[in-house]
Amino acid sequence: MPTISRRGAVMPASPIRKLAPLAAAAHAKGVKILSLNIGQPDLPTPREAFEVLKHIDRTVLEYSPSDGYDRMRRKMTEYYDRNGIEVTPEQIIITSGGSEAVLFSFLAALDPGDEVILPEPAYANYVSFSKTAGARIIGLPCSIDHGFKLPPIEEFEKRITPSTKAILICNPNNPTGSVYTDEELEQIRDVVKKHDLYLFSDEVYREFCYTGKPIKSALQLEGIDDKVVVIDSVSKRYNECGIRIGALVTRNKLLHDTVMKFCQARLSPPLLGQIVAEASIDIPNSYMEEAFGEYRRRRDFLLKGINSIPGVYSPMPMGAFYTVARLPVDDAEDFCKWCLTDFSYKGATVFMAPAAGFYTTPGYGKNEVRMAYVLKQEDLELAVEVLAAALDAYPGTLPR
Amino acid sequence: MPTISRRGAVMPASPIRKLAPLAAAAHAKGVKILSLNIGQPDLPTPREAFEVLKHIDRTVLEYSPSDGYDRMRRKMTEYYDRNGIEVTPEQIIITSGGSEAVLFSFLAALDPGDEVILPEPAYANYVSFSKTAGARIIGLPCSIDHGFKLPPIEEFEKRITPSTKAILICNPNNPTGSVYTDEELEQIRDVVKKHDLYLFSDEVYREFCYTGKPIKSALQLEGIDDKVVVIDSVSKRYNECGIRIGALVTRNKLLHDTVMKFCQARLSPPLLGQIVAEASIDIPNSYMEEAFGEYRRRRDFLLKGINSIPGVYSPMPMGAFYTVARLPVDDAEDFCKWCLTDFSYKGATVFMAPAAGFYTTPGYGKNEVRMAYVLKQEDLELAVEVLAAALDAYPGTLPR
Repeated sequence: MPTISRRGAVMPASPIRKLAPLAAAAHAKGVKILSLNIGQPDLPTPREAFEVLKHIDRTVLEYSPSDGYDRMRRKMTEYYDRNGIEVTPEQIIITSGGSEAVLFSFLAALDPGDEVILPEPAYANYVSFSKTAGARIIGLPCSIDHGFKLPPIEEFEKRITPSTKAILICNPNNPTGSVYTDEELEQIRDVVKKHDLYLFSDEVYREFCYTGKPIKSALQLEGIDDKVVVIDSVSKRYNECGIRIGALVTRNKLLHDTVMKFCQARLSPPLLGQIVAEASIDIPNSYMEEAFGEYRRRRDFLLKGINSIPGVYSPMPMGAFYTVARLPVDDAEDFCKWCLTDFSYKGATVFMAPAAGFYTTPGYGKNEVRMAYVLKQEDLELAVEVLAAALDAYPGTLPR
Repeated sequence: MPTISRRGAVMPASPIRKLAPLAAAAHAKGVKILSLNIGQPDLPTPREAFEVLKHIDRTVLEYSPSDGYDRMRRKMTEYYDRNGIEVTPEQIIITSGGSEAVLFSFLAALDPGDEVILPEPAYANYVSFSKTAGARIIGLPCSIDHGFKLPPIEEFEKRITPSTKAILICNPNNPTGSVYTDEELEQIRDVVKKHDLYLFSDEVYREFCYTGKPIKSALQLEGIDDKVVVIDSVSKRYNECGIRIGALVTRNKLLHDTVMKFCQARLSPPLLGQIVAEASIDIPNSYMEEAFGEYRRRRDFLLKGINSIPGVYSPMPMGAFYTVARLPVDDAEDFCKWCLTDFSYKGATVFMAPAAGFYTTPGYGKNEVRMAYVLKQEDLELAVEVLAAALDAYPGTLPR
């Protein structure tokens, strides 16, 4: 049998899907699975998304341009304009989900051996995409004890080597829910400028920021127009993860044109997704306000609930719809497995993502889990009860 | 400004899009552009595709599984079964177009420096995908004078080195329209087996085979189950290129599981595309028969037409909807450009793809073009007239 590639061999399995077979087995036994593991929102996709699909005035579902169709890119500029971000349609490339935007930025910008500094815990697939490009993620651990705040800027500086090519941030953050302050972003900007690095900024959770003011986009940082690449997506914003529409936004023409070569090779982003996304950008504000309110209520409920369980601690997330919690166990992965294989309460169990998979620094996150508050209130209530009962019953629970 | 990656720098621009700005400029001047350059069929997408979009019974357009949703993969097995190809749903991975299937097979199977033997002229994006994986395409030129038939199998053997990892074929072939015989495929099978190589077989034009019998799929070759990877797509089959639904089919479990890691990183293939593709697989035979008849009539007309122009020669393509023609010029790219910048006839001009971009071997294809017969009969008629007139008027036309 021919061998697989070395990069294929080192690609990590997805930490959020690793335990899925155990969850499936529990489900098959009739246990209700409370899925806090993945960021698949349960909120309804806007009505307008389904409506527009009923009235497609085309006879052929043809290729769209490799950077997405014009109207879609113009519509995106309206959206950015409303968010105080000035970009032109020529600076936007529509991608197959935010995922493809990350992959193509890495392929276009990073050489094998290049290093990317990434505050962690972080979205695990960044590691997969960097391995695809042959680059190395240099983790910068943030501590749960400091609310996952970014470490002092000197910690970024310390990690810079001749191989450093970029800093990657996710703001609001998956998995911690952190939102970076303007000051933090400006310090990062200064480092990026000083060392002539790319700043990749994943802003797919832009809408879900509970600080009372909008996040500052990396595109709003002055003086680094040729260094910033923003990753965006309509997936979480409009609860339409399945349509696979994201965007890569950069004012760096050379990088844009290089990414376009990868885009041309894959021909085009999904046409139907673009049709839905374009319609979604125009939905009434009330839809976004409702989703925002719902997530904030869930966050408040979940955080109060889990923090009231003895030995459990999670800092208050200020954005996105995730939180990372510390549990009174030595090995959160063992505990997450046990919940799926050996435990149920009121006919249900919790499916959580062990957080070690969100760190590249060995040893970190061993006693932490990520929870996504993508379940409706009554299921979240049950999840908190189940978690409390599970920690009471688990043989490995530490004294608390 | 930070530098772009070395792979980004060497990624070729798409040869079929290279002249698009010239075509756009001609169009802006009011010239009708007869686009023979790209494989965007003009035939209507099945009615059923639009119908199914009107009746989506979901409230959330959610992620599908990374390998595509179960029903979709089961439906694909029905399709393969009708084509005499035995595969299970577990051997099928739904991808974002056939393009992603090529990219992910390369990433999962090929290391930097690995070599892939490819009969050429060939679909140009294979080169882009191999550069993305760091692998090298080793071209095996086929001659227009031999009707682009595969060279003797010894020519494959001659190109095998310790770095050879795979043979890549496209059958029916884009851009030549060649269809490989069972004997040729069995010879390739023997080489693949002897040297323990992967056989990547792109079969997206399977339906369009004018030999009177179906093509033999690489999955029907005996004794190399662990080596075959078939690339497939519904794009051309049902005229729905824009939905971005392809498939990677392999019985090699390790390769399958490795490809799945790349799939998990990008989360999921397009949901709406899967809904449309699933419905398309069940459309009445009459749709396929009509498309088939239409392409065959166009082929017959176009080939007769261009071969009647003095100095023009194209062998009869037996599959797909492309043909490569030799023109009586020294440099077909110059001629193609001139057609767009300096010429029109009856208010129209032809947009053809210079064929040199489909070869990796320097010097090949300089006087050849690829034409896609994706225009309706009357436009094809006009295209033949325009081409004849252009060659009469072009200062660089060789004595004939």
